[in-house]
Amino acid sequence: MPIRPATEADWPHLWAIIEPIMRDGETFALPRDGDEAVARAYFASPEKVNFVAEEDGVILGASYVRANQQGGGSHIANCGYMTAPAARGRGIARALCAHSIDYCRDQGFKGIQFNFVVSTNEPAVHLWKSLGFDILTRLPKAFHHPVLGYVDGLVMYRAL
Amino acid sequence: MPIRPATEADWPHLWAIIEPIMRDGETFALPRDGDEAVARAYFASPEKVNFVAEEDGVILGASYVRANQQGGGSHIANCGYMTAPAARGRGIARALCAHSIDYCRDQGFKGIQFNFVVSTNEPAVHLWKSLGFDILTRLPKAFHHPVLGYVDGLVMYRAL
Repeated sequence: MPIRPATEADWPHLWAIIEPIMRDGETFALPRDGDEAVARAYFASPEKVNFVAEEDGVILGASYVRANQQGGGSHIANCGYMTAPAARGRGIARALCAHSIDYCRDQGFKGIQFNFVVSTNEPAVHLWKSLGFDILTRLPKAFHHPVLGYVDGLVMYRAL
Repeated sequence: MPIRPATEADWPHLWAIIEPIMRDGETFALPRDGDEAVARAYFASPEKVNFVAEEDGVILGASYVRANQQGGGSHIANCGYMTAPAARGRGIARALCAHSIDYCRDQGFKGIQFNFVVSTNEPAVHLWKSLGFDILTRLPKAFHHPVLGYVDGLVMYRAL
């Protein structure tokens, strides 16, 4: 799965991936009625670096990497991943996460923190665990799932 | 300790409080060489509501309140507090935090999460505990303290 830095020209493709996930409202803390600007601020704001997973010229998923905090907290990265709904189950999120682990290590980050994994997103939690992330804590009832109601969020962490 | 909503005219006073704390670099994840725009983005960006503690026309401390996440996470608040160094030890942070607990409850938030308390900021940790916040987890070596080196961050939480 080739992964390359995203360019400005990729954004419409990223938006096409993010929009159904945002409308769905089950796995990301994004407003279900949010517009393109909301998605861009979340996933592709200037302090973030984006990568895309591309196959035969089609973008199947994307990641962002940023410092999770500024100043004294800037040695810990934060990353996010989105896979096109039609391409799920093909290892794209795994490839993107493995890529960002290597990228963050190369950039000198000492760890990666996921601030808000929805606990009921079991495939994601399982995947992050398999890639070396631990659950540091559950955030009690921190996410209102459109079907399941209030469920926990998770803070996950991997040292580099 | 009277606490009131901040106005645009208050910003220079807030900056005067935040700047030495930012230069100090021991208690907030802010770049020590950051400028006023960095401070404003951190403490007073548009999605935040600010309050000030004022005595005899002098602003001694300030708070911000925001939703910690968007969408399904927007029922949990995040708050921050700064006290003018010269006014420490007078209960200003306590008053500001107690005020924001009431404010967040009135606004319908179900809890308040502090994402990144520097673990060596013991007066703050003690204070938040006394106001009903629990440590959900330590973030291992997540903060580089200018004197103490790598120390833990804390995620703290209080249900409302």
